[in-house]
Amino acid sequence: MLDVPTAMSVDILTGVMRTRKPRVGRKLTEPLHKPSVDTVTVELGDRSYPIAIGVGLLDEVGQRLGPLRGSGRATVVTNATVAQLYLDRVTTSLRAVGVTPTVIEIPDGEAHKNLQSLAFIYDRLVDARMERDSPLLALGGGVIGDLTGFAAATFLRGVPFIQLPTTLLAQVDSSVGGKTGINHPAGKNLIGAFYQPRLVLIDIGTLHSLPRREFLAGLVEVIKYGVILDPDLFALIEDKLGRILDLDEGLVRHIVRQSCALKAMVVQRDERENDYRSILNFGHTVGHAIESLTEYKRYLHGEAVAVGMAIAAKLSAARGCCSTETMERIVALLRRAGLPVEVPPELLGSPLALTIEGDKKVASGKVKFVCIEQLGRTRFEYLTGTEIEEVAAR
Amino acid sequence: MLDVPTAMSVDILTGVMRTRKPRVGRKLTEPLHKPSVDTVTVELGDRSYPIAIGVGLLDEVGQRLGPLRGSGRATVVTNATVAQLYLDRVTTSLRAVGVTPTVIEIPDGEAHKNLQSLAFIYDRLVDARMERDSPLLALGGGVIGDLTGFAAATFLRGVPFIQLPTTLLAQVDSSVGGKTGINHPAGKNLIGAFYQPRLVLIDIGTLHSLPRREFLAGLVEVIKYGVILDPDLFALIEDKLGRILDLDEGLVRHIVRQSCALKAMVVQRDERENDYRSILNFGHTVGHAIESLTEYKRYLHGEAVAVGMAIAAKLSAARGCCSTETMERIVALLRRAGLPVEVPPELLGSPLALTIEGDKKVASGKVKFVCIEQLGRTRFEYLTGTEIEEVAAR
Repeated sequence: MLDVPTAMSVDILTGVMRTRKPRVGRKLTEPLHKPSVDTVTVELGDRSYPIAIGVGLLDEVGQRLGPLRGSGRATVVTNATVAQLYLDRVTTSLRAVGVTPTVIEIPDGEAHKNLQSLAFIYDRLVDARMERDSPLLALGGGVIGDLTGFAAATFLRGVPFIQLPTTLLAQVDSSVGGKTGINHPAGKNLIGAFYQPRLVLIDIGTLHSLPRREFLAGLVEVIKYGVILDPDLFALIEDKLGRILDLDEGLVRHIVRQSCALKAMVVQRDERENDYRSILNFGHTVGHAIESLTEYKRYLHGEAVAVGMAIAAKLSAARGCCSTETMERIVALLRRAGLPVEVPPELLGSPLALTIEGDKKVASGKVKFVCIEQLGRTRFEYLTGTEIEEVAAR
Repeated sequence: MLDVPTAMSVDILTGVMRTRKPRVGRKLTEPLHKPSVDTVTVELGDRSYPIAIGVGLLDEVGQRLGPLRGSGRATVVTNATVAQLYLDRVTTSLRAVGVTPTVIEIPDGEAHKNLQSLAFIYDRLVDARMERDSPLLALGGGVIGDLTGFAAATFLRGVPFIQLPTTLLAQVDSSVGGKTGINHPAGKNLIGAFYQPRLVLIDIGTLHSLPRREFLAGLVEVIKYGVILDPDLFALIEDKLGRILDLDEGLVRHIVRQSCALKAMVVQRDERENDYRSILNFGHTVGHAIESLTEYKRYLHGEAVAVGMAIAAKLSAARGCCSTETMERIVALLRRAGLPVEVPPELLGSPLALTIEGDKKVASGKVKFVCIEQLGRTRFEYLTGTEIEEVAAR
């Protein structure tokens, strides 16, 4: 049983844009119109790092690098879609502080998070004579972040890694916590490393260019934090869903910050997923299986996780872990957001069970499955793929 | 200036085979003829691990795995040469404790320490359905150890890694300290990770099958530990060189144990080579450049390092860091062992200087070069490739 630590039970914003009083000793050189920036620190001893959250941060990448700018060279890894929208702002800000950027463009999509793209990045880093202090910046969503992070973890046995996440999913999930990796034809993220970034800059302004479907897929992870750790966050999303989908800046900033703080708390307690960190896999066991069975083509990751969360809630209710009411609140919120909550009939049966048991998180044949007891409280159950599939089929 | 910590100044054995008194409480089930085993522990907090050194340990791999045997599957990575000599002993000992081994054979040689071999290992691990607790054992020399260690560091974001080094070089150097990696066409070990093994089993009996030339190349690293950290070890090798080359068991066991203890001390102080650990690169700056310029065909690693150590000693004397006498003792011992001590004339000139500056350890154009002040005492100097080349050309 895992209670929400009280330190994380922050007040819920009413949705009103948060204003900050000028700090005492504020430097006169700072422009007065400078938008406020929130900072969440991930405390991991000598691997601690700040996550800055605000609007317009992509124009401040260079100055915010500080000593991480190294000896004047940096690499930005991105894809064509993101490059067209945001690359100029990042490279301009790097040049403004005397850093010469090398840009590596990877084709868009999960299919390119593989060993071939990794080899391509290594080749370009060698060609550009990047050194041990040359930072590697990931500008894009989760695919770019995971791939670039793994390259940073392994080039010269580790170079400074900076995350510039441009999707909601990357901002609230993949850019925080140090999981990096690539896919193998046999499964997602089968190859990778735990490697923490040195800095995460979240420019929530990028969410305006994000397709609605992708925004929703990212919101699934925010709802997940509410379910497993923070009933107030869950209630806020229930209450303000419409304004969140309209990208109300104060609300979006709040849910992003709160998600990062919750994930940081989990990662601080169990960086390498020995045990506790796996609560973050709530909804992911079935989610991963559905993505795999549909060859990553039909569902976005978040959509598959939405289905997985609904199944996990139903399974929790069916096993008497949580009340029917709690299960129904979760399923209802996902439905209201227009997210899928059921496994398509054609995926049911032994393929689903077998795919679940093929997950890399399996040890000794049983799956460590995250169940909920009530909003904000979870527990692990060890189940076979068949036991999980039976509930999905109801 | 780095003094030898007094804790490491152990007594020198006289070369007489060390005998051990039976331990109080010795179990009767242990055969009385069981050869004694020395243990050196690398103290790295939750990443600490033991190095066991003795004769016949390859027959005890299974029982010595203890809880590391996981859920009954293990992978042994090796090459054809080593497999023919030792694989059966390892797999037999694994089966004896109920572990089913999967064997992955990599072609012999440095040329295969690359991304293709790594991808081959990943594919086999996926095919064999290895899990997070399935250990990966490296049976062989440095190539097998570095490659297998990197695979272990990155498969499922890290699985238990066991080193079974069969060459002197791997026993005293590459199997201890957690540097893993592969080569890139542009340079050695450009891709890798710091990843500590969970257990190192050194069976010095394997040295009887090692070609003399390879034994000598490994001995270079032992001499290096003497030069940079332990004058007594250096003097012992000066005194007993003939008996060491005849594989006197007591002497070999002593120099292997002492080398592991010295390397462990360095790694404990600076695991990720932020500063102090780079004293281990003594002789390696020029050594790496020579290997690279001769395309890794003409010299064994240790032979190239022997040349590099001689140049580093000469450079130390030329800059007034150490006495001429100290320099001459180092060069003389290397010569007596039949090792090369001079850069071939055709490699001299700007190619050598440029290759040195292309080393991955370069930061901001200058090379951090390890000079000696006296036996057991070193200091770093920051030099250009040209400054180093000038001394090599004398």
